Amino acid sequence: MPKVVIAGAGLVGALNACYFAERGWDVEVYEYRRDIRTMEHVPGRSINLALSHRGKCALEAIGLKDYIVKQGVELHARLVHNKDGKTLSRLPYGQPGQHIVSINRRHLNEAMITQAEKKSKVKFFFEHKVQSVNIEKKELVVADTGKSRIPKPGNISSSVSDSEIHVKADLILGCDGAYSAVRRSLSNYPGFNYSQEYISHGYIELNILPKNGEYALEPNVFHLWPRGQFTLIALANRDKTFTVTIFAPFSLFEQKMSTPEGVESFFQENFPDAYELLGRDHLLGTFRSVRPQFLISIKCQPHHFGDCVLLTGDAAHAMVPFYGQGMNCGFEDCLVLSEILDVCNDDISKALSMYSEKRVKDTHTIIDLAMYNYEELKDLVNHPSYKLRKKLDLFLNRIFPKNLDSSLFYGYIY
Amino acid sequence: MPKVVIAGAGLVGALNACYFAERGWDVEVYEYRRDIRTMEHVPGRSINLALSHRGKCALEAIGLKDYIVKQGVELHARLVHNKDGKTLSRLPYGQPGQHIVSINRRHLNEAMITQAEKKSKVKFFFEHKVQSVNIEKKELVVADTGKSRIPKPGNISSSVSDSEIHVKADLILGCDGAYSAVRRSLSNYPGFNYSQEYISHGYIELNILPKNGEYALEPNVFHLWPRGQFTLIALANRDKTFTVTIFAPFSLFEQKMSTPEGVESFFQENFPDAYELLGRDHLLGTFRSVRPQFLISIKCQPHHFGDCVLLTGDAAHAMVPFYGQGMNCGFEDCLVLSEILDVCNDDISKALSMYSEKRVKDTHTIIDLAMYNYEELKDLVNHPSYKLRKKLDLFLNRIFPKNLDSSLFYGYIY
Repeated sequence: MPKVVIAGAGLVGALNACYFAERGWDVEVYEYRRDIRTMEHVPGRSINLALSHRGKCALEAIGLKDYIVKQGVELHARLVHNKDGKTLSRLPYGQPGQHIVSINRRHLNEAMITQAEKKSKVKFFFEHKVQSVNIEKKELVVADTGKSRIPKPGNISSSVSDSEIHVKADLILGCDGAYSAVRRSLSNYPGFNYSQEYISHGYIELNILPKNGEYALEPNVFHLWPRGQFTLIALANRDKTFTVTIFAPFSLFEQKMSTPEGVESFFQENFPDAYELLGRDHLLGTFRSVRPQFLISIKCQPHHFGDCVLLTGDAAHAMVPFYGQGMNCGFEDCLVLSEILDVCNDDISKALSMYSEKRVKDTHTIIDLAMYNYEELKDLVNHPSYKLRKKLDLFLNRIFPKNLDSSLFYGYIY
Repeated sequence: MPKVVIAGAGLVGALNACYFAERGWDVEVYEYRRDIRTMEHVPGRSINLALSHRGKCALEAIGLKDYIVKQGVELHARLVHNKDGKTLSRLPYGQPGQHIVSINRRHLNEAMITQAEKKSKVKFFFEHKVQSVNIEKKELVVADTGKSRIPKPGNISSSVSDSEIHVKADLILGCDGAYSAVRRSLSNYPGFNYSQEYISHGYIELNILPKNGEYALEPNVFHLWPRGQFTLIALANRDKTFTVTIFAPFSLFEQKMSTPEGVESFFQENFPDAYELLGRDHLLGTFRSVRPQFLISIKCQPHHFGDCVLLTGDAAHAMVPFYGQGMNCGFEDCLVLSEILDVCNDDISKALSMYSEKRVKDTHTIIDLAMYNYEELKDLVNHPSYKLRKKLDLFLNRIFPKNLDSSLFYGYIY
């Protein structure tokens, strides 16, 4: 059986491991961080993710869908909070019965690693950092960061220094996210087209705790405080907390939210109801310790290098979060790759070319749609034509229900 | 005096060294290759370059212009060779008296290194390969590739391994070309927007030798065999040879020029007069030993990182060659940087921000114009409207002679 080596044990890396385990291939996964299942606190990255139709399909193929969906929170509509802190308006995501699911990143990641590990041919190596890729030798070069509590791989071909391991593979998957070391290592590969674009907005995550043991806000909706140039969102978690995110231009963070007094009055003025629920101490404590995070949009073409390396997930197509399709698109990568390998009878070289040909165009479209929704965030959301367009979307979706992923069609945040 | 460390001793790196030598700064230049002055044969890269007004201005400021221009060959017009191998048509570059200058890359590079070395504060370290940049420590990390015949730098702060040298600096300039190691090392720097795009055309360089001790073609014109999807060009050298370049889609190289018979009949059919002058043996020998080279277009924004690193030349803005402004634009970078440092009284942090603000927009425009000329190459050059547009260009340039670099306005190849 061929051997696949996967860089990254995040959501897409772990799901790919499940898929290749099902295929019966030898699977090795190398991950820079510790095993997420052993961590007390997982740093960085958004906690909440919205699972949509395309993501569910990818989970279904490896039998994880029902388990994951049950652990999530259904979202049936957007609930818009007005500036007076009282009035609410509701915009459904789809036809009655349709919904998206809010999922906890950590829980999802843990479930997929555990699922993959059930197969004996799958091995995870945590605290192994990708150094580079050698296409001619079909090797992933990783450094054991020296703290690993998990046995070393048995089949090491050579080592340049004590900590550097050269892992041979038939297929190398770069699933190491937007700042992919696999991609960077191959960025000078002839014919590799690439772009990365940062937007002028950043974000900070906050929390709303339960109130008298219950959700402090209605749980089964996507809470939204649109204010033109900036916005606040909130998604329910199963533990009755909410994860709250503020998106705003970096310039606004600097001008209006650089002092505790500034943060306080900015939230009081713009999000009075959310301010009450967040609490002054939590709000100011978070702003003191956390800086606004960057948002990046990445495109590349092709997604593969030579006849042995393929980028999937954010490593190939990171997108701004305003469409809620980043994770779902990464999950779909796994499904598409699996289907193409079926068609090609596991001829890797042929499959990689086919994959790029099919997948580049689709992912570029979703990236552009996410960026378009970002433009909406800045300009359109408070505009009367926006509500009209949403109504038109719903109408079109009623006529052509099978053609479109409902959350793709309606967007996520807007 | 502050210290500048320059990655790359190519055209832009060497010119920057001259500029900072004039400023009185301490200058160290680290170059991956051997000293070009000691090499018998210089591999890779186009041999001929067209020096235009903006390039001349940059050379003038360090007193090299007259010397360089004298060593070049003046080009007053394009001379178009038709498919019958006989008819020629002539398109002037500018008004009577205006011209561009064809320059030999090696000669130019050697002259600038020698010019920079005249100052005692300038040191070149050849065979030192850039590994990475550390912005916090203001260090360029280089590896001595172990073959250097030139003394090691005296002021080494630390070394990770025997060959790794950490060079401290107040300013680090990435002048290491389109595949810049400085840029790659910092590609994940927050807020760094970047794109690289390969075009579907490649190129191969050939030579026409002197005929009876004289130029085999008219020397003071840019020879051009435009054939729609593909084209041949020729520029005179001072040694009475011509450097000839064929540009064609990779698919055409594969389909029509993959065998000696294919190459021969392709050149006989499309460039009969050039075929005679190139000679069968040289043509087939070159195609046997050389593969078509890629052409890349690179944009980034900003051009600087933090308060100590700046990309200039191809490292910041590689462009396709169809405008003949790649080198000139890199030379202009040196002049612009120098002027901004004057304005800022050598406040590096302030100067870098100002430089990006001023320079990004200008370079993006030239990159786009070069790409537009590439589109012309594919579609327009044999079209009647093209000649009309060139006539309009000339007319406009007569009215607004001071506003535009003539070769920018007329393009280079087209």
